[in-house]
Amino acid sequence: MAALPITDLSRLCLHTITTKPWPLAVAAKNYAAAGIKGITVWRDAAQNHPDGIKAAGQVCRGEGLEIVSYVRGGFFTALDAAGRQTAIDENKRIIDEASQLGAPLIVLVCGATPGQSLFTSRAQIADGLAAILPHARACGIKLGLEPLHPMYADSRSALNTLTQALDLALALKDDHLGVTVDVFHLWWDDRLQAEIARCGLERKLFSFHICDWKNQPVDMLNDRGLMGEGVINVPEIRGWVGQAGFRGYTEVEIFSNRYWAMDQGHFLEKIIAAYRANS
Amino acid sequence: MAALPITDLSRLCLHTITTKPWPLAVAAKNYAAAGIKGITVWRDAAQNHPDGIKAAGQVCRGEGLEIVSYVRGGFFTALDAAGRQTAIDENKRIIDEASQLGAPLIVLVCGATPGQSLFTSRAQIADGLAAILPHARACGIKLGLEPLHPMYADSRSALNTLTQALDLALALKDDHLGVTVDVFHLWWDDRLQAEIARCGLERKLFSFHICDWKNQPVDMLNDRGLMGEGVINVPEIRGWVGQAGFRGYTEVEIFSNRYWAMDQGHFLEKIIAAYRANS
Repeated sequence: MAALPITDLSRLCLHTITTKPWPLAVAAKNYAAAGIKGITVWRDAAQNHPDGIKAAGQVCRGEGLEIVSYVRGGFFTALDAAGRQTAIDENKRIIDEASQLGAPLIVLVCGATPGQSLFTSRAQIADGLAAILPHARACGIKLGLEPLHPMYADSRSALNTLTQALDLALALKDDHLGVTVDVFHLWWDDRLQAEIARCGLERKLFSFHICDWKNQPVDMLNDRGLMGEGVINVPEIRGWVGQAGFRGYTEVEIFSNRYWAMDQGHFLEKIIAAYRANS
Repeated sequence: MAALPITDLSRLCLHTITTKPWPLAVAAKNYAAAGIKGITVWRDAAQNHPDGIKAAGQVCRGEGLEIVSYVRGGFFTALDAAGRQTAIDENKRIIDEASQLGAPLIVLVCGATPGQSLFTSRAQIADGLAAILPHARACGIKLGLEPLHPMYADSRSALNTLTQALDLALALKDDHLGVTVDVFHLWWDDRLQAEIARCGLERKLFSFHICDWKNQPVDMLNDRGLMGEGVINVPEIRGWVGQAGFRGYTEVEIFSNRYWAMDQGHFLEKIIAAYRANS
């Protein structure tokens, strides 16, 4: 079964980091003018909004945009207990910020620490999540575990497959905890289709990010491609996500020095064209 | 159970690519003088040897070195049948070269092609292997499937986990086909210990490569670290490999613009020190 065809922009969400040069108010205005309906707000964009985080949320809603998620929390791992407590405190603040912003979901990049095994880091991630989930629940904020590509296992995330993220989400038995699927991180995994289906059965698929993996990127961080520019079959994966029952937004999140250097209005046109043609 | 302690250099093998600035004869002479016993010859090093590939092998053996493997074959995938046949023909030539060199094993980087799915590429890899295995067997040359890190799934290898490589080696039911484990490519995988054990039970663990994954490498290709410089627990993985019954060489393979720019004699000392202390 193919993905539902894209006939309009009603399920398109853009991450503010994608158009990093634009301040939040400019981004929100331009997204809305282009017909986009969803916005995911990066923490720096919200924090840099001159009138504060609550006002940042009002600006988005004032443009008719739905705030899809707040990005990002996590980084629970550390070599010492004090470092891990600092991370827990910081994540509670991020939950408060999401609440002020009016975002229903925080995406978590969970952390990894050189000098300890990935198994140790994963146990610390579980402990950190257990420590913040009561606050998230009290605030009505959901948390999405985003597994990162294995090339980020050194110091960004010890969760590198959807299997690991979903298993952890299930182990903590909390309906406020689920997963975020990003095609850039997971496209290579031969278990992806089955694991997306399992996320659906378990009602744990909280959000869905797209971009493309360019053939032989020049930079491990900031050379992501527009959909259709690389090797990922985005429509196929979006089809799997739809078959898993996901009816939320398709979020475009692109880190790219090349695109950040471009006129952002022109880039926005390219994003919309790539969304229509190759997603 | 920990790895067997390293008490001498009797199981150390060096890849010629590691000291790329040295021509093969210089590398062989310096490795032997340092007490190293094994050498893995890269194809360009053998082909650049002025007296031909057979003489390249004699140079290595003349220094008292055992040739451990010939690197590398593979790249079986292509969008059209003609491209795949070209790859098969090329791999047969590589088998002939290994035979002339006197190498018992060829390491295979199996290929991936943008524009087709990884599942399609894997099927083409299986077909390519089936086409060359009779020639490998006739020449007495073993083939080691080396799964590459998922960051190379775009165009270098559709085999990205040891699970995939071992399953493929088993599916083709040929005792000349096995796997090569490289810590750089596989360290992040939570199934690694179990899969190495399975390789041992199946007698499919043909060779073992080490280096280190530096925290946040600056380059996806040529910024590998010396053992101990990064985040991989090399002794632990070497322990798993030993427990799996592997008694072959531990091969140091490092691609590094930084180290290639260094005096190679000094670098060789650092390799040996890192092998003794952190492997």
